[in-house]
Amino acid sequence: MAALTLHPDRLLPADPGVRSLARRLYAAVRELPVVSPHGHVDPRLLRDDTPFADPASLFIQPDHYVTRLLHAGGVPLSSLGVGSGPLPEDQARAAWRLLCSHWDLLRGTPVRYWLEDSLSSLFGITSRPSADNSDILYDEIAARLGAPTHRPRELLQRFGISFLATTDDPADDLSAHRALRDDPAIAATIAPTFRPDRYLEVGRPGWPTYVKELGDVETYAGFIATLEERRRYFVTQGAVSADHGHVDAGAVPLDRRDAERIYRSALAGTVTVREAVAFRQHMIFEMARMSCEDGLVMTLHPGIHRNHHPATLAAFGPDTGHDIPVAVEFTRALQPLLERFGTYPGFHLVLFTVDATVYSREIAPLAGFYPSVYAGAPWWFLDNPAEIRSYQRSVTEISGFSRLSGFIDDTRAFCSIPVRHDMSRRLDAGFLAELVSEHRLDEDEALETLTALVASQPRKVFKIG
Amino acid sequence: MAALTLHPDRLLPADPGVRSLARRLYAAVRELPVVSPHGHVDPRLLRDDTPFADPASLFIQPDHYVTRLLHAGGVPLSSLGVGSGPLPEDQARAAWRLLCSHWDLLRGTPVRYWLEDSLSSLFGITSRPSADNSDILYDEIAARLGAPTHRPRELLQRFGISFLATTDDPADDLSAHRALRDDPAIAATIAPTFRPDRYLEVGRPGWPTYVKELGDVETYAGFIATLEERRRYFVTQGAVSADHGHVDAGAVPLDRRDAERIYRSALAGTVTVREAVAFRQHMIFEMARMSCEDGLVMTLHPGIHRNHHPATLAAFGPDTGHDIPVAVEFTRALQPLLERFGTYPGFHLVLFTVDATVYSREIAPLAGFYPSVYAGAPWWFLDNPAEIRSYQRSVTEISGFSRLSGFIDDTRAFCSIPVRHDMSRRLDAGFLAELVSEHRLDEDEALETLTALVASQPRKVFKIG
Amino acid sequence: MAALTLHPDRLLPADPGVRSLARRLYAAVRELPVVSPHGHVDPRLLRDDTPFADPASLFIQPDHYVTRLLHAGGVPLSSLGVGSGPLPEDQARAAWRLLCSHWDLLRGTPVRYWLEDSLSSLFGITSRPSADNSDILYDEIAARLGAPTHRPRELLQRFGISFLATTDDPADDLSAHRALRDDPAIAATIAPTFRPDRYLEVGRPGWPTYVKELGDVETYAGFIATLEERRRYFVTQGAVSADHGHVDAGAVPLDRRDAERIYRSALAGTVTVREAVAFRQHMIFEMARMSCEDGLVMTLHPGIHRNHHPATLAAFGPDTGHDIPVAVEFTRALQPLLERFGTYPGFHLVLFTVDATVYSREIAPLAGFYPSVYAGAPWWFLDNPAEIRSYQRSVTEISGFSRLSGFIDDTRAFCSIPVRHDMSRRLDAGFLAELVSEHRLDEDEALETLTALVASQPRKVFKIG
Repeated sequence: MAALTLHPDRLLPADPGVRSLARRLYAAVRELPVVSPHGHVDPRLLRDDTPFADPASLFIQPDHYVTRLLHAGGVPLSSLGVGSGPLPEDQARAAWRLLCSHWDLLRGTPVRYWLEDSLSSLFGITSRPSADNSDILYDEIAARLGAPTHRPRELLQRFGISFLATTDDPADDLSAHRALRDDPAIAATIAPTFRPDRYLEVGRPGWPTYVKELGDVETYAGFIATLEERRRYFVTQGAVSADHGHVDAGAVPLDRRDAERIYRSALAGTVTVREAVAFRQHMIFEMARMSCEDGLVMTLHPGIHRNHHPATLAAFGPDTGHDIPVAVEFTRALQPLLERFGTYPGFHLVLFTVDATVYSREIAPLAGFYPSVYAGAPWWFLDNPAEIRSYQRSVTEISGFSRLSGFIDDTRAFCSIPVRHDMSRRLDAGFLAELVSEHRLDEDEALETLTALVASQPRKVFKIG
Repeated sequence: MAALTLHPDRLLPADPGVRSLARRLYAAVRELPVVSPHGHVDPRLLRDDTPFADPASLFIQPDHYVTRLLHAGGVPLSSLGVGSGPLPEDQARAAWRLLCSHWDLLRGTPVRYWLEDSLSSLFGITSRPSADNSDILYDEIAARLGAPTHRPRELLQRFGISFLATTDDPADDLSAHRALRDDPAIAATIAPTFRPDRYLEVGRPGWPTYVKELGDVETYAGFIATLEERRRYFVTQGAVSADHGHVDAGAVPLDRRDAERIYRSALAGTVTVREAVAFRQHMIFEMARMSCEDGLVMTLHPGIHRNHHPATLAAFGPDTGHDIPVAVEFTRALQPLLERFGTYPGFHLVLFTVDATVYSREIAPLAGFYPSVYAGAPWWFLDNPAEIRSYQRSVTEISGFSRLSGFIDDTRAFCSIPVRHDMSRRLDAGFLAELVSEHRLDEDEALETLTALVASQPRKVFKIG
Repeated sequence: MAALTLHPDRLLPADPGVRSLARRLYAAVRELPVVSPHGHVDPRLLRDDTPFADPASLFIQPDHYVTRLLHAGGVPLSSLGVGSGPLPEDQARAAWRLLCSHWDLLRGTPVRYWLEDSLSSLFGITSRPSADNSDILYDEIAARLGAPTHRPRELLQRFGISFLATTDDPADDLSAHRALRDDPAIAATIAPTFRPDRYLEVGRPGWPTYVKELGDVETYAGFIATLEERRRYFVTQGAVSADHGHVDAGAVPLDRRDAERIYRSALAGTVTVREAVAFRQHMIFEMARMSCEDGLVMTLHPGIHRNHHPATLAAFGPDTGHDIPVAVEFTRALQPLLERFGTYPGFHLVLFTVDATVYSREIAPLAGFYPSVYAGAPWWFLDNPAEIRSYQRSVTEISGFSRLSGFIDDTRAFCSIPVRHDMSRRLDAGFLAELVSEHRLDEDEALETLTALVASQPRKVFKIG
């Protein structure tokens, strides 16, 4: 049976001289606490500290990175428990077997890298998953999952997480966060994030109804005041940022009267697609204004065509692996917003992309001029070694290291948090080692830069106290 | 006189440790048979087994990769025999001399790499082409071309080609293929490919006339039935795929009545540009439906502005080096097709691009979800080491190795087939060696993956029995 | 205090074998004269030979590469003297201190690399700039600036510049150039460049007035004749090229009557945005025609959204760091121009981009067919090692080395000229060494290619006698 081992030099550059330099750099940041300013872990996981049910609910069901690759390889999503709660043991075991027996589908992907690290580091697995050992591995993992050492809070500490942001609905009362904050047993800060997307898309089915969950939104003025109030509430509950993920990056203010008119149409359910887009782009401008006022860092994640395969959406729900990137544009889209707020003191705008071409063409040039703009870490389809390396080179050479956001894991797979950060540290160490080996940076500077990227930069960019 | 030698380690990574690993991997696949599921060799070449006339007709006249570079360097296409049949010897010799004396124009290109390999491996040439040795080389090559060892069928065997697909007009009776299949002296499978582009572009000059070559196409229903029938005929003659190369990737079904109306206008010669585009996009959708029914693998090659220089088209015909890429979009363009057929059992859709940005942004994410979608090998302007390496990294990290089509040479230069496949094997070996050297893959997995890419993956993707 | 040293192997590849090869290649071109066919040095600097006032006016105030990074890092442009003439000493010293104390902001950027080289090579600085040594460095530099060794003409010679093109307004009488040409003390050729942008954008505020500076432009015919005449004048004064930097690459001829009509509207101040764009694209076509007639090389620099932050424009003027790239398209935009002039004997068209994706998709394929088209060197935001390496690979593999323009510094920072060219030579040596190490090129060819790129190619492409 093939072994599963984690080589201490994994992901470091192949050249022996550069690798030895990278190793030194990496060693200095390897054990630093994890700061995770943006992700999708459910705060109730930590509040309730319920043990993970089984290997499938831990590693497969909630992780569309895993399920989409198996689906592409011919495995039905239903057999993986996608969109379901915890499965009966026989089904959970069968789902786990499907992953193990299709282990070759993951070759070369970061998903494989993350899983291997978790399996080895957290569960002491020493053999490569396969159809043959699937049941043995299942039992080994399940046994540990039942132990106190592998409950969510214990893992939070073991992962060295000092700050963890979740993603929350503006209507949420944030009681889970309050409970966590009030609990002296939790050393880490668990912060909510204001994510108002669905309230800003006024043409979406159901909007006239669900917008009322926010508060008194009978008028445009009330809508704005309510959003301002909800943001302030999030701030009081520890939120540091507001996150926005629409299909484009447009931010264009409307005349007050146009905004009011469209808002009325939206409430009446008669808004057109064009009006809804204009209103949403107006609201992104408004969100920037509010960020200037209340201090929430603004993060923009545009460029995703959501739910590309409607039948899968209908059967399994959203976030099931068929959100597909489209080309995205920032320079013109953000001009009105940056004209107005780009040099506003203390305003922070972090830009993400799944269209790798805009890093060097738009994001880095914007971040290299506007004090408010930061280049978000490689996101989603770009969170793999090849694209991270490309990002390091192209963004840094245009805007320097100080305009990077620091690493952001953006994951809903709790156990992948430490390994994702570790991957980033290894790749940053490798990149800096290359700069030193090309005599473009001295080693003391490389070390200082790497430490900043891991420790201080995310705190500075996300205003984490 | 400078020597021409083929170094055994050419194209392998420079780092000694990685290179030695790559060498081991490459050695294991070096001699495996060539599977070529998409290309442009004329089947009559093999049916008739006529000797190649001379070095110019073998290496220059039909190969726009070569002629465009010489043209850019100031050599008139007329002096190279572009668009002509075999040249009188003095002109063939002069064309060959133009290539040799401009050998420096090819530096750094894959064209140079392919030519060098062919000259050395096939013709035993040992000195670098130049104005000085042009006539000697001409004579050496011409002498071998006359020998039985260098006739097309003998080369087919020597190249180790086990499967070779051609590109054929739907109206073709495929008699050349039948003759080849019936000939016991041919061990390789020579398969036709259904390429209906010109019949689907109903606004093209001459369409109302030439469409009638297909059969009874007086009505839209007849047109559809005829295409279905021609596809079935191709299937009986061994075709495994249908190939589509239009300027965009759009695939949007029309209402039956709209399709019929536009079809009538097209027959009458009164179709508008807009209608012709809509009809063509409708027909791509229909082609996908037919692929689901008859099993032909669907390949899409969009994104080329054909015949950029009309004067060259008029003087020398199409495919003469001035087809230029444009930006292309897949995510939205293919959504209707994939919504309908993306998970249809057995449907295979292979996506190619000359816009390298869409590999990571669109193709890999699509191939990483839809069981039907495969990422086609780097195509045309991207079939060089730099872009192949970029493709390997960006596609594999998003979708894994199992979503790749395997190598496709797409060439009309018969003698370049083996070296193109060899280049791909070397680059795949190098890439996999890097993954192993970064401890992201074990060596046994790398070997298995490389063997699959060369041997089983193209057979699986193209349904080659 | 940290040392500042220039390692002799800086920027060369890390692998020891490749590096040693690169070192040999680099050594052969290191001392060759600098040919700079496109840049923004003010010819009066050399005519007057006035000493540089102080470190701030030399290294900071005119260089938006430096000031934008400091601005992004929170340093107000006003404190850096942007848009001002020479500062009083205390302010110059303070500006210099801001640069030194924010030295870390430049890490990983080419700006840092260029500054380090200038500080060390030209001013003998041996310690890394910081808040602590800022005043010492200021004094050291200022002392040398006062010496005859560091006056502009002396530096011109020391830099080994044999040809230097400036950028000039078509209405300029070029008296500074005449003075330089007539001065036997100047060995280098200082050539003007015809840059008509503001006269071709007929919708710009003030156009009806300032266009009259050109001559008799009361009619469209007069406008055309005047431009032709001004170009001819530039040719007599040694100009080799005409440079064009508009937001897109469009080149579409208008009917004569439409052109005349729009021209009249423009003079009357009633032109629409759409008409102004059409007229400008028509004029780009006309400029190509004139280039065919008068022989000026045509260079196109599209794809910049100028003055993204209007408040900065208002306070500090243009070219102050907030020009941001946008996606750009060449294949379709240039088709009419290339259909008409693409094979015109002697016509040269050099294409630049800040959208790195178009190198492999459009520029290299165009340059690989049209004898007139050359791939301009990586421009502006792409003038860093990562993007230069990407350009080398993607353009060369598609079009070969002979279609490259050779290096172009495009700088307004006089002291950065030699180090920018040196960076290019090092990177070209590294790239060629890699090709040799992969056995794709012989060393003698690499050496010949590198020498051509540095010495003969820019002279050939820019028709420098």
